[in-house]
Amino acid sequence: MEPFVAQDPEWEERVRASFVRQRFMATLGARLARLEPGLCEIELDYRLDLTQQHGYLHAAVGTAIADSAGGYAAYSLMPAGSSVLAVEFKLNLLEPARGERFVGRGRVLRAGKRLTVCELEVEAHAGGSVRRCLFGTQTVMCLPDTRDDSSRS
Amino acid sequence: MEPFVAQDPEWEERVRASFVRQRFMATLGARLARLEPGLCEIELDYRLDLTQQHGYLHAAVGTAIADSAGGYAAYSLMPAGSSVLAVEFKLNLLEPARGERFVGRGRVLRAGKRLTVCELEVEAHAGGSVRRCLFGTQTVMCLPDTRDDSSRS
Amino acid sequence: MEPFVAQDPEWEERVRASFVRQRFMATLGARLARLEPGLCEIELDYRLDLTQQHGYLHAAVGTAIADSAGGYAAYSLMPAGSSVLAVEFKLNLLEPARGERFVGRGRVLRAGKRLTVCELEVEAHAGGSVRRCLFGTQTVMCLPDTRDDSSRS
Amino acid sequence: MEPFVAQDPEWEERVRASFVRQRFMATLGARLARLEPGLCEIELDYRLDLTQQHGYLHAAVGTAIADSAGGYAAYSLMPAGSSVLAVEFKLNLLEPARGERFVGRGRVLRAGKRLTVCELEVEAHAGGSVRRCLFGTQTVMCLPDTRDDSSRS
Repeated sequence: MEPFVAQDPEWEERVRASFVRQRFMATLGARLARLEPGLCEIELDYRLDLTQQHGYLHAAVGTAIADSAGGYAAYSLMPAGSSVLAVEFKLNLLEPARGERFVGRGRVLRAGKRLTVCELEVEAHAGGSVRRCLFGTQTVMCLPDTRDDSSRS
Repeated sequence: MEPFVAQDPEWEERVRASFVRQRFMATLGARLARLEPGLCEIELDYRLDLTQQHGYLHAAVGTAIADSAGGYAAYSLMPAGSSVLAVEFKLNLLEPARGERFVGRGRVLRAGKRLTVCELEVEAHAGGSVRRCLFGTQTVMCLPDTRDDSSRS
Repeated sequence: MEPFVAQDPEWEERVRASFVRQRFMATLGARLARLEPGLCEIELDYRLDLTQQHGYLHAAVGTAIADSAGGYAAYSLMPAGSSVLAVEFKLNLLEPARGERFVGRGRVLRAGKRLTVCELEVEAHAGGSVRRCLFGTQTVMCLPDTRDDSSRS
Repeated sequence: MEPFVAQDPEWEERVRASFVRQRFMATLGARLARLEPGLCEIELDYRLDLTQQHGYLHAAVGTAIADSAGGYAAYSLMPAGSSVLAVEFKLNLLEPARGERFVGRGRVLRAGKRLTVCELEVEAHAGGSVRRCLFGTQTVMCLPDTRDDSSRS
């Protein structure tokens, strides 16, 4: 992996402000746990209201923290005044998402001017053990000169 | 598309009971809207607490109803006493998920003994218009002789 | 599916000329079989030197005709003077690629200014029967003002 | 990554024999370059007859060596008497495949009884530099008690 350097000196505030505007993250109880240029981690705790039929975390909840983490990993490297949009993602469900806490991680594999490719994963923390339950890739697009905080109209 | 025939006479009760056990569906306000052998639709209404930073539906919410719809489309064709597990999915985000109501649809493309492949999509209903905002595929595995209602242990 | 309209009056010559430059298509014996705005079919015949270990068509050969078909379906809608680049694809191998002739089809699902999403499939023709052996999606990027025939340097 | 241990003492001969039966590998001039339990590398040299319209390696040629490498990485861990089948793969084309030599690598991420998930990548070697041009994941299925050398019938 290349070491990434942010081009916007205010990249961190920009990413944190956008995360706060993602209301769905609050609904899930998700927190921005780690943020570096090209890397983002979002974590949440197990809750019964986030589960599928066997009582494990629903795959879409893991997807939520992985997808947002990837988007923000990519967004950290984008220029000031830009907005970010996921284009596609693909996730392999390696094993049931069993644990007390889950960490979604997005890591930039390649940052282009327009398109960024990220690796996504979700780790399940159960007792002392950490197991990767979700893994995949994501393509993210940079929209230059587009506000990230435009409201729904 | 082939017309599919369910092999378990109680397939519908089995699928509906499993859906009810997915607590995350209730959290999202999602409803089982249509169910046929090899086809399932799950819908939900727009809510501000399900949005991303621009006020559109978070991609993971669309993923939730598409992934569960695909799982149940596949599960409808599986034998009695089996359980269902998604293996992987890939979704292209065709456009922002803008609308008052969203329909996630899973349709079986090929049903094998062990693996089933589904087509997934999410439609955004806004005023009179219907636009497809998410499209992709999913692989689902059948676990024979496994209870679908085993609790978390 | 929307009916697509090409914006470049010379789209067809442009696509055909690009196909001819894909030397790998000639290596596989692949032919441009059908071409409409937003749709492309490329076909080839079974040959023993294109097979995997069981004697079926290698998945990458099906990928070749599906990927190029999708790229040209997208390219048919792009402006004059542009070039085309695939960004990612995902394919489900629905069943072994068994047959005498194979048709790769790319169909535009959504054409954006920069990004186009296509549905990809490969059909296996065996005797009188036609079976879909590969299915998936692809993202393609338009590079405006870039020559499609630039040579390797 | 876990260190993987092969369960079949004759795993290496089994994998090598299967590779030889993939006629398409010979057509591409591809060689089995590295083989360990859970890991496989297949390489080939640039040839003009393997290119797309800009003179770079066609994405499907990269797919061929990545897909087969992943299949054999997975197959190395499977029991004697089994056969291997790819279920799906997804690849991001990180940059044009420019170089004199290309290495496709498959690495097992998780080996299950039935399904194995691999990480796939292709490196382009150009002069002294090595750049990753393709990256993705793959799902592979184990078919127990199925001959790998059954001929086409």
